[in-house]
Amino acid sequence: MRILGIDPGLGRIGFGLVEVGVGGSLTSNCWGMLTTPSNTPDAERLQILYNDLADLIETTRPDCVSLERIFYFQNATTMVPVTQARGVIVLRLGQFNLPFGEYTPMQVKQAVAGHGKAKKPEVQQTVQSLLGLDKLPRPDDAADGLALAVCHYLHTRSMGLAVS
Amino acid sequence: MRILGIDPGLGRIGFGLVEVGVGGSLTSNCWGMLTTPSNTPDAERLQILYNDLADLIETTRPDCVSLERIFYFQNATTMVPVTQARGVIVLRLGQFNLPFGEYTPMQVKQAVAGHGKAKKPEVQQTVQSLLGLDKLPRPDDAADGLALAVCHYLHTRSMGLAVS
Repeated sequence: MRILGIDPGLGRIGFGLVEVGVGGSLTSNCWGMLTTPSNTPDAERLQILYNDLADLIETTRPDCVSLERIFYFQNATTMVPVTQARGVIVLRLGQFNLPFGEYTPMQVKQAVAGHGKAKKPEVQQTVQSLLGLDKLPRPDDAADGLALAVCHYLHTRSMGLAVS
Repeated sequence: MRILGIDPGLGRIGFGLVEVGVGGSLTSNCWGMLTTPSNTPDAERLQILYNDLADLIETTRPDCVSLERIFYFQNATTMVPVTQARGVIVLRLGQFNLPFGEYTPMQVKQAVAGHGKAKKPEVQQTVQSLLGLDKLPRPDDAADGLALAVCHYLHTRSMGLAVS
């Protein structure tokens, strides 16, 4: 089972691919970030995201996706571009018939670090440890993608669903 | 010049096509609503919207689009589906190389009815009058689409831009 975690955004879209082995071992050798150029019309940036997402899915061949859920924003200036980009991501997942789970940042912290108020370094170190990585995954957006994928695995396992 | 107004949403997407004739006469014989079924996964609804928008653009052949701007929401439950759908709409406009203007509901009221606190019936009656329609356009979502298209025409005219 290959789980692709995606941290949505318009300018920086973090991702991380986690492989679940026999017995539930977790490994990863693929994480990174899609970007779209600022000072470019949103319609063009969404088009870039739409195309690059297809490349990412075709390259990583995930069985399912874990996508951050948007649940709160202080202002529409920040909210609209990220949520619009998330719409394009959800559209793309549908076009590839990819099932996906959705988790708030608090749910990711809860699942990975054991409590919803965990700080980012604690979450990242737990992800590093669970995946047996030599060093912390960088940049933060990619680490968030990996954490989302790990969260989805732990969530489905806790639900008694088979994911390997 | 043909202006397609679009009132974004996930379940109900209003639209109206306004033709600007020589001398700035405004007419319309095309308005309506795209819909996506509730109780259906968002990924599927966004796919339906993506496909139906292409049909709408190919049928109406607009030169430009007027799209409602999202500027305020009380909660994310309402905001996320509408804004995600708007992202798919913006993506589609980019894929068809369609330029578009963006207006808040208050800007539409200001442009069409002369003041930003106009009630919906006043806006609709002004649109009906400007377009020379026998009766009020229905449903409301379609009327909002027409009002957006009229707003874009009035806005570009006031900016001294040629639109006919």
